[in-house]
Amino acid sequence: MYVLAINCGSSSIKGKLFGIPKSKSDPLDFQCSLEVVSIGSKDENVKIKIKWEEGKGENLSEEGKRGDEVDYGSLVPFLLDHLTSSGNLKHDDIRYVTHRVVHGGTHKSGIQVSKKHEEALDEMDKLSEFAPLHNHHSVLAVRSCLDALPHHTSLMVFDTLFHQTIPPEVYTYALPPPDKDLAMPLRKYGFHGLSYASIVQSMAQQLGKKEEHVNIVVAHLGSGASACCIKDGKSIDTSMGLTPLEGLIGGTRSGTIDPTTIFHHSVNPAEMVNFKDYSVSRAEILLNKNSGLAALAGTTNFGTIITRLNPNSCTKEEHERTVLAYNVYLDRLMNYISAYLFKLLSSLPTDKVDGVVFSGGIGEKGARLRSDVLKKLAFLGVDVDEDKNNGKHQGKVTEITKDGSELKGWVVETDEEGWSAKMARDEFDF
Amino acid sequence: MYVLAINCGSSSIKGKLFGIPKSKSDPLDFQCSLEVVSIGSKDENVKIKIKWEEGKGENLSEEGKRGDEVDYGSLVPFLLDHLTSSGNLKHDDIRYVTHRVVHGGTHKSGIQVSKKHEEALDEMDKLSEFAPLHNHHSVLAVRSCLDALPHHTSLMVFDTLFHQTIPPEVYTYALPPPDKDLAMPLRKYGFHGLSYASIVQSMAQQLGKKEEHVNIVVAHLGSGASACCIKDGKSIDTSMGLTPLEGLIGGTRSGTIDPTTIFHHSVNPAEMVNFKDYSVSRAEILLNKNSGLAALAGTTNFGTIITRLNPNSCTKEEHERTVLAYNVYLDRLMNYISAYLFKLLSSLPTDKVDGVVFSGGIGEKGARLRSDVLKKLAFLGVDVDEDKNNGKHQGKVTEITKDGSELKGWVVETDEEGWSAKMARDEFDF
Repeated sequence: MYVLAINCGSSSIKGKLFGIPKSKSDPLDFQCSLEVVSIGSKDENVKIKIKWEEGKGENLSEEGKRGDEVDYGSLVPFLLDHLTSSGNLKHDDIRYVTHRVVHGGTHKSGIQVSKKHEEALDEMDKLSEFAPLHNHHSVLAVRSCLDALPHHTSLMVFDTLFHQTIPPEVYTYALPPPDKDLAMPLRKYGFHGLSYASIVQSMAQQLGKKEEHVNIVVAHLGSGASACCIKDGKSIDTSMGLTPLEGLIGGTRSGTIDPTTIFHHSVNPAEMVNFKDYSVSRAEILLNKNSGLAALAGTTNFGTIITRLNPNSCTKEEHERTVLAYNVYLDRLMNYISAYLFKLLSSLPTDKVDGVVFSGGIGEKGARLRSDVLKKLAFLGVDVDEDKNNGKHQGKVTEITKDGSELKGWVVETDEEGWSAKMARDEFDF
Repeated sequence: MYVLAINCGSSSIKGKLFGIPKSKSDPLDFQCSLEVVSIGSKDENVKIKIKWEEGKGENLSEEGKRGDEVDYGSLVPFLLDHLTSSGNLKHDDIRYVTHRVVHGGTHKSGIQVSKKHEEALDEMDKLSEFAPLHNHHSVLAVRSCLDALPHHTSLMVFDTLFHQTIPPEVYTYALPPPDKDLAMPLRKYGFHGLSYASIVQSMAQQLGKKEEHVNIVVAHLGSGASACCIKDGKSIDTSMGLTPLEGLIGGTRSGTIDPTTIFHHSVNPAEMVNFKDYSVSRAEILLNKNSGLAALAGTTNFGTIITRLNPNSCTKEEHERTVLAYNVYLDRLMNYISAYLFKLLSSLPTDKVDGVVFSGGIGEKGARLRSDVLKKLAFLGVDVDEDKNNGKHQGKVTEITKDGSELKGWVVETDEEGWSAKMARDEFDF
């Protein structure tokens, strides 16, 4: 019997399969990771990769149809077929599936869905208005799973769950009541919650303390980027807001800007247009998909950005543009890290603050960025260890400051799928 | 000969008249302050007050027409007549007039305007798009002055001037090029610059150092509110952005929110509607005029808010609503103060950081707010002196921390009109 954790991104599906052990006290038995990329692409075919643990199945890497000829709904059966055949298991062996859903509104726990008990999916699809580039895809994937695996139960787990502890003075926007009926209140929700929850668990293990004693500021920096202030193991503030747009600059997201800017930038920003089978305002497409590092640096590849900081690696124009993009990215990141460190340091003794954690693709690979951030924190006693920072990370958690550093820096490999599977285990008691 | 400093707000005109001394080394000779309030009000008549220095003129306090029956253009001749008659001077004695104009785009100095040299006014009116509730009124006031005082020269001084030193990595938004030709780039500009410049001057005098050695974080908290990080006497970051909307919560402004919020909140947010003879998007009216403390607390009066923090002073519903509003206001303020303090502390020795300054109506009167902010800075060595904080301020600058406090807190009376007159003096060399 297996539990499958599915994570639909804006152009990818990631997943992990775990065996359910006989004893509840044994850990989940990791089987394989899977990935589908280039979904929606006009230029590329989707690529599917399945990587099995030694002896558990046969690794697989192949191309499917062109990206814009598939959708999340049609990809799921395709993926399940490849998974079962390469691993020599039956569809019905997969008893539970978890789906990461970006926006869960004010829900405080995951939601079960099974064949003929699908009401919650309509509600989730209504919230797609607030995560137009994500929720709808996840709902398609859940429906498709219910068809392909008629005897399983799905659990929708939300990126907003971890932030339900944020207090009202932080999540409230100073706005009058809205003009229309809405599926949920207009407030800060926060995202990347599965990642933050998994990081708290990893840091608690690393520090040898309970999760409710972990006090950290985390920067989850991937193509979407956010920061989170975690006190007593709980989120007390985060940079993303009503939608994932607010806060830090992302690969293609503007992050926080003057809220009136878009009305000067674009003609008809409120016009609803079709985007991947869903109706979205022009403003939301522009601010989510055409802004951020892509707009500033001309690339979303952070490795390329770091390379181009060297003037000899590219044209003068590319170099200058990249230096500005990097510095803008760093400036916004420092604003959140400093405000969140401040929240911890103003309410806890310094030795209870466990440090600053970097995670996500950019956070885990971006040694230069981590160093630049931590050097600005020298006045708080942060003493970065460049050897550790530039070296290969060992295990899930790597310290990147010197032994005597008063405040520490860390790199933590996040595990959204592992955390989702753990949530299923708690929910279904297996 | 006199110089008159005019400051058009969103519903008021403030001003100060100064005599021009014979010697350039003598200070300007303050004559009177003047104020017109309730401009645009549907319920109240405009009220005009002129308060002369002892022996310089006859104080005046009277009502004019109903607020919505007057405009900034028609009020100026009315005001000048009252000023000259109560002070027994002639129109032509006023040789220079300064006008505070909120948005000056990328201009790095003030702009002179005189009869038949009015080209710059058209340009300023184009920038009204970015300060729809302000610039246009100021332009009306300048035109009216040129008619009423045909022999004077006006100097437009911009709230954006002081922030021209903000570096590109701070003022750049991560956006693609706009759809349309614009009068200026879409970036952070910052406002309240006349106030910040006057505060730097006052702090330099207080500390007995040159202005270029002043390092402070300033919270200018009035019905419009912003924070500024000042290093070496220069602005290096500020909370307002392309327009005065971004950043802190104001009396009726939302401050920073997820930039997509408005598209969920309002029907037709991009629709242009008429507002006080100017065309503005519905979103900008809602976010600038119907949000902020007014939306959260039901009042913009900060004194009322402080009173209602006491549960015995009002209904339970009013009390709870007010507590939330106050805490939201404080949370956003702390985020900026902490990020800006970090900018100073990460690049300067602690003893070069001159502290946190409160100014503007709420900053100068709000002892409770100042205390709540400074107590959160205890971990940085701030030791607030409640007697000084609650006591009467002496002169322009009052320290509100104890003598041994490592980092200091201050209240500074800002003087936008005095600073404007000083700018005219530098420009016209009188």
